[in-house]
Amino acid sequence: MKALVYLGPGRRSWQEMPDPQIQHPGDAIVRVDAVTICGTDLHILKGDVPEVTANRILGHEAVGTVTEVGAGVETLAAGDRVLVSCVSACGRCRYCREAHYGQCLGGGGWILGHLIDGTQAEYVRVPFADNSTHRVPEGVSDEQMLMLADILPTSYEVGVLNGAVRPGDVVAIVGAGPIGLAAILTARLHSPRTIVAIDLADSRLDAARTFGADVVVNPGTQSARQVIDQLTSGLGADCVMEAVGTPGTFEDSVRLVRAGGHVANIGVHGAPATLHLEEIWIKNLTITTGLVDTYSTPTLVGLVAGQRLDTTAMVTHRFTFDEFEAAYDVFSRSAETGALKVLLTVSQ
Amino acid sequence: MKALVYLGPGRRSWQEMPDPQIQHPGDAIVRVDAVTICGTDLHILKGDVPEVTANRILGHEAVGTVTEVGAGVETLAAGDRVLVSCVSACGRCRYCREAHYGQCLGGGGWILGHLIDGTQAEYVRVPFADNSTHRVPEGVSDEQMLMLADILPTSYEVGVLNGAVRPGDVVAIVGAGPIGLAAILTARLHSPRTIVAIDLADSRLDAARTFGADVVVNPGTQSARQVIDQLTSGLGADCVMEAVGTPGTFEDSVRLVRAGGHVANIGVHGAPATLHLEEIWIKNLTITTGLVDTYSTPTLVGLVAGQRLDTTAMVTHRFTFDEFEAAYDVFSRSAETGALKVLLTVSQ
Repeated sequence: MKALVYLGPGRRSWQEMPDPQIQHPGDAIVRVDAVTICGTDLHILKGDVPEVTANRILGHEAVGTVTEVGAGVETLAAGDRVLVSCVSACGRCRYCREAHYGQCLGGGGWILGHLIDGTQAEYVRVPFADNSTHRVPEGVSDEQMLMLADILPTSYEVGVLNGAVRPGDVVAIVGAGPIGLAAILTARLHSPRTIVAIDLADSRLDAARTFGADVVVNPGTQSARQVIDQLTSGLGADCVMEAVGTPGTFEDSVRLVRAGGHVANIGVHGAPATLHLEEIWIKNLTITTGLVDTYSTPTLVGLVAGQRLDTTAMVTHRFTFDEFEAAYDVFSRSAETGALKVLLTVSQ
Repeated sequence: MKALVYLGPGRRSWQEMPDPQIQHPGDAIVRVDAVTICGTDLHILKGDVPEVTANRILGHEAVGTVTEVGAGVETLAAGDRVLVSCVSACGRCRYCREAHYGQCLGGGGWILGHLIDGTQAEYVRVPFADNSTHRVPEGVSDEQMLMLADILPTSYEVGVLNGAVRPGDVVAIVGAGPIGLAAILTARLHSPRTIVAIDLADSRLDAARTFGADVVVNPGTQSARQVIDQLTSGLGADCVMEAVGTPGTFEDSVRLVRAGGHVANIGVHGAPATLHLEEIWIKNLTITTGLVDTYSTPTLVGLVAGQRLDTTAMVTHRFTFDEFEAAYDVFSRSAETGALKVLLTVSQ
């Protein structure tokens, strides 16, 4: 089969690789029908994720068709259309039993395209297949479903639910890239009063408006704190989501929240930040971090199937598998290309 | 009347002051029968709390007897025995309506001995008296009740409840001063599996054992992380409470918690800490800060009255009002004197 292979920092190739085989009774083999690229894949390509070794097939999001299942798989059969989740779950360890699948101790968690070969390939081996896939309902397209593999549950769980967004809240979202936009989309499920999107790129702020931001702020030309003070009688936002991943944007997020409010960190960070405890010890803040657990995926699937959540605007560029290198190029130059999520489907 | 007056950094005096008067219809005047000194009072005396101006009467904890009430007070009358809470509550603002009384926007919050004259006096004016006092039940001594003015609800709300302590948890408490000990006492209400107390002073660790710590660690001679790893199969503590208030102890607290766990900051901080987001972004942590709201005070009063919570070991030294200067001296040299809380009662 063909697959997108990480060859070491800065090097990747769409190339021939051996077909995956069932290795454990809980495995399934899935033919990949649609796949996308995650910002995390770009981090891996930069060499930022040293656990990923050369010759690893990348990718942790896919929609596909089951072609073979191991002897221990009970709920799937060849021919089933499934979402392959970014998080695999043994279903048996302490964390899985508490629905913290992202922290699985039994060999799951984020493993696809990280510790084992991933989904950017014509076929993928999915461990713990009963617990690591979700059936695609009738009437939901591959493209819609694919957005539920990682980005939507990440922004929903780590941003909106950890941030405890409630009806009537003023919600600030720092960063209007794909994760920030998915946070806007899923925050709306909880009926906030005002969503404020904050980004230095006006093109991203335009996208934020399209996704449902009520107010947009470019901190290059306007003070985000002033805008939020006006909306909240000077108190600060009820919930601030950090969707960038730099010390500065995290510190800004803590400055924008009101006493008693929530700061939900979604960003992937590579450096420490300064926590101004001398200011916030008295403010009754809740600060959360997290990798997605995907416990919300069934809820999100139901919302998409019931036409209560529309993910279609996430996909801006479409390619076939034989254009994989071009897709990476467009996605990695998103500031120029305006790419949010790119879709790759089987070559005709 | 006599009162303990802050005269500027490093200077205090037990001296004659004018009797307090009703200023607003919601005020009550309370004759102070028992009062204590808080670590925060020592911070004020050092000049660390610049909002406190010279000639302010200190103190924000008392048990006393109502002598006079304003025209708007509905639930209290002269002769009633009450606890004067460290937090006053207007009861009308947005924060009070959400039970976040510590953040009161209507002129309450922590005001006694801070923004208005406090309880270290023969009489005190208590604003919003209906909402800022708690009746002393039959059978509860002044001394027991006094511990519910600040230290017990602070450790319980900001430590145990913010830290979401659950039955079976391994709980680490960094700092075994009075606040840490009160955290041990109130954590036990939630039936943790193991309470680990961590402090550099062996005398404090002895006290921690008396209050209910199952394991004590002096990090000067033993690695707290190793002890907790042994208790948790290497995962880390379910909940870590920071009860010191320094950058180093906060950073240690974050290092001791498991993925998915809670770090509850109770310490009063004067400097920023480093938050290692590059390590914790993926760990699903919840970090909380807070000033006490005192919403738990009625619960704690009920537990003391029902003999389910014994606060008597908190008081180590007893004085009368005319020994106020000596009491401050003993309390401020707690490392030598072993003082936890000092009790001051009316001179005979």
